[in-house]
Amino acid sequence: MFEAAELGRKIPREEFDAMAPGLRTELLALQQQLRDADFPVIILFAGVDGAGKNETVNLINEWMDPRWIVTRAYGKPSDEESERPEFWRYWRDLPPKGKVGLFLSSWYHRPLVDRVYGKTTVAELDENLERIVHFEKTLADEGALILKFWMHLSEKAQKKRLKGLEKDPMTAWQVTKTDWEHFVLYDKFIGAAERLIRHTSKGHAPWQIVEGADSRYRSAVVLQTLKDSITKHLAARDAAKKVHAEIKSKAAKAKPTAPAALTCQPSILSSLDMTQSLEGAEYGKALQEQRARLAHLYHVAKEKGVSTALVFEGWDAAGKGGTIRRLTNALNARDYQVIPIAAPTEEERAQHYLWRFWRHVARAGRVTVFDRSWYGRVLVERVEGFCTEEAWRRAYGEINDFEEQLTDHGIVMCKFWLHITSEEQLARFTARGEIEYKKWKLTDEDWRNREKWDVYEQAVNDMVERTSTTNAPWTLIEANSKNLARVKVMRTVADALEAALGKAARRPKKDKS
Amino acid sequence: MFEAAELGRKIPREEFDAMAPGLRTELLALQQQLRDADFPVIILFAGVDGAGKNETVNLINEWMDPRWIVTRAYGKPSDEESERPEFWRYWRDLPPKGKVGLFLSSWYHRPLVDRVYGKTTVAELDENLERIVHFEKTLADEGALILKFWMHLSEKAQKKRLKGLEKDPMTAWQVTKTDWEHFVLYDKFIGAAERLIRHTSKGHAPWQIVEGADSRYRSAVVLQTLKDSITKHLAARDAAKKVHAEIKSKAAKAKPTAPAALTCQPSILSSLDMTQSLEGAEYGKALQEQRARLAHLYHVAKEKGVSTALVFEGWDAAGKGGTIRRLTNALNARDYQVIPIAAPTEEERAQHYLWRFWRHVARAGRVTVFDRSWYGRVLVERVEGFCTEEAWRRAYGEINDFEEQLTDHGIVMCKFWLHITSEEQLARFTARGEIEYKKWKLTDEDWRNREKWDVYEQAVNDMVERTSTTNAPWTLIEANSKNLARVKVMRTVADALEAALGKAARRPKKDKS
Repeated sequence: MFEAAELGRKIPREEFDAMAPGLRTELLALQQQLRDADFPVIILFAGVDGAGKNETVNLINEWMDPRWIVTRAYGKPSDEESERPEFWRYWRDLPPKGKVGLFLSSWYHRPLVDRVYGKTTVAELDENLERIVHFEKTLADEGALILKFWMHLSEKAQKKRLKGLEKDPMTAWQVTKTDWEHFVLYDKFIGAAERLIRHTSKGHAPWQIVEGADSRYRSAVVLQTLKDSITKHLAARDAAKKVHAEIKSKAAKAKPTAPAALTCQPSILSSLDMTQSLEGAEYGKALQEQRARLAHLYHVAKEKGVSTALVFEGWDAAGKGGTIRRLTNALNARDYQVIPIAAPTEEERAQHYLWRFWRHVARAGRVTVFDRSWYGRVLVERVEGFCTEEAWRRAYGEINDFEEQLTDHGIVMCKFWLHITSEEQLARFTARGEIEYKKWKLTDEDWRNREKWDVYEQAVNDMVERTSTTNAPWTLIEANSKNLARVKVMRTVADALEAALGKAARRPKKDKS
Repeated sequence: MFEAAELGRKIPREEFDAMAPGLRTELLALQQQLRDADFPVIILFAGVDGAGKNETVNLINEWMDPRWIVTRAYGKPSDEESERPEFWRYWRDLPPKGKVGLFLSSWYHRPLVDRVYGKTTVAELDENLERIVHFEKTLADEGALILKFWMHLSEKAQKKRLKGLEKDPMTAWQVTKTDWEHFVLYDKFIGAAERLIRHTSKGHAPWQIVEGADSRYRSAVVLQTLKDSITKHLAARDAAKKVHAEIKSKAAKAKPTAPAALTCQPSILSSLDMTQSLEGAEYGKALQEQRARLAHLYHVAKEKGVSTALVFEGWDAAGKGGTIRRLTNALNARDYQVIPIAAPTEEERAQHYLWRFWRHVARAGRVTVFDRSWYGRVLVERVEGFCTEEAWRRAYGEINDFEEQLTDHGIVMCKFWLHITSEEQLARFTARGEIEYKKWKLTDEDWRNREKWDVYEQAVNDMVERTSTTNAPWTLIEANSKNLARVKVMRTVADALEAALGKAARRPKKDKS
């Protein structure tokens, strides 16, 4: 695989110097165009030590305008990072639309090094690579341009480089014991690298292998590739935008067709028994019981560093707010955060749609309550046409991936759909209009959404069907009875937590701290 | 001081229940008004364990709409936090305008506990409190409403509470060894608390002592205070806005007066020798020398975890970009970040103006280059009237405080003003218009700024005079010669770093890692 990168390719100084000013001007001009573009450029550098990764990143920063470039490199995860899923730190560092992100020792580093040092099996390496493929696909699907450069040096060239540095007293300090340790592992490294490149070189995120021995050659290759790829991507995004606009205008003109028939079939929502209720003393007792359970379980969860993510979705006026309050009331205010999801901010709009949820993933032992969530993509955005059909259809998979990363990390996850009947909603809207301190809760949008009840219901059914997983199941809550809804939510969370913490947590025991 | 909080004040259930619905409605309505307000509400809870801090925070979350509330509590700093100045974590958690932030174990916690456990002297406690006063003043000056509640329990009441909890097997687990340890230290704690309250109760951020034994009494006091304070603050901000608008409109109508005379006196800028230059081989040699010095010094700085913050300000076309590139070229791309400061984003505009700089304070061992900076406040914002005169005048002190926190934390700081003469700027503007790949750099705004040269010059002189400190000095760069500017900047940074790292760093030595 690396044969072509060991041919000793070189570019003479005069040739490079003749090419440089023109290339540089073009790159700067492209950067100008990029600033208005609707996608980020993500460039990864990996490869053999000393093959010019750092130097190339420096050169890009020197040639282009560093104000629209972010450079990120990763070492050992900080404790804030290791308390969250591995990809959290990469998500938080992604460049916004219009900017270029240069990544060193990125998401490929740990899987590769772990394999070289024998900490993981080949199967585990493959699993790690699979997650990377999903990650990059998710970014590319939203428009990101992803370029990956593998900087190569032959074993011979590497040895020559290290010896050369050691000879000069001015540079000798640059050669560390680690460098020689890596050199001994050269063959193993190259073997794993080959597998890595084979598994993760995709149309949307290709690897390019670059011979790194000659600084002019490697610079020319990287910068030329950069120029060509950005140029092509800008053109492709422009074309795609035109196609989307055309589809949208055609759809707007077309007569709306009713959703596919078979509506007499029972759906997930229609099969709920909405007549249940929970009243009086029975309610009071049940609420107290679940409160006490939750309070104790969360005490243990905090000690053990087990986090919880709770997602609340539901019809307008289904009682999300009240239910969340009853639940959090059982917790210590310092241990939970309620994250209301409204329209994204400017910084959030400049990122992948999942970015703003990743940023709220909590540290170990905390509870995060999402009042509405990433499911907006397949609910309101789908129904209102805020994203393309292709986008919301692929969102199911993206969301499953996202949640899998959370639950794989040990986060306990419950998702609630608070369901009420259309009649109950109408009654609650009417009542809201009459109570002084609840009036502000009722907006014109609520009435508009109500008109689209059937379309929303279809979206909810699809959502539950496609995203209810063993580790992150949906629980449908019959919320015509607020009391019932509150108790059922609390009981579900307590059950999930109890299962996760193991039987030991069931009985209160004396804290030994 | 706490006598009034040991009187056994109570509110009977009926009285509380009669008051509650009205108070709750008013608080919700206020929260609605707050959402459009131009200030955040910051509420601190401190005091004796078990005096109801957590319960009160829970109650506020229950009564008000938790979507516009953030609750923060602090434990041991994470490594990402301890690698930065102490207040970094508080800054990053501040609520944006329109929201309420509830803080538990906040910035008062560490100073208080350290004193109680004898880790600090009284003088050190005072010093810590002084910093807090500055911090809160800075926030309040920008409009924040700050309320601080000290929840009190008498020694007797505390003992009774702990014994009571221990007796009930359902609650016994809540009492830990730490609780009894704290109880033994009760007197010491109260002594330190008294000093803390005396030193930090200010008009803009008053402490209110609340007797915490009765949950209804303390809830009523806190919520009533909350209601009254928010109401008053909303009115006060409205009034202030009107006054500002009036002043502004009067100023707009008034004939501009020339800056105070005495212009023939030498100023800091006018006394620079702008004829210096550095050419040819001499430049090449000097550049190489400083590059090598910097590369090595930063290698050592990284090992030692010493961070650097570099601030670049200067006239348009003074060569900031080029100078920064030459400097960063000596560094490893993974170790530095260039932060271009342009217009603030939406999230940044919703915060104190220093917030967006705090968020970029780097972890240990990194270099942060600010291409323009917080000095915008006393330069462009002053000159263009984007903030009030009172605001930019007080900014000198706020900036000095901010930088002191960075340098006290061990961050090496250099600030550069790149100075060119008006004639040189004109020549460069003209040249820019003629070079294809530099055209975009020249905007109408550049020409407009040029017309205000004298006013800007006055602002620069004031800035240098008021904010050049021993630990964060301004270096004025004679940048009519780009070569000279580049070398002088690099030499200044290298000198500062060398001084900070000590003489040991001077000679290259073999890395032992």
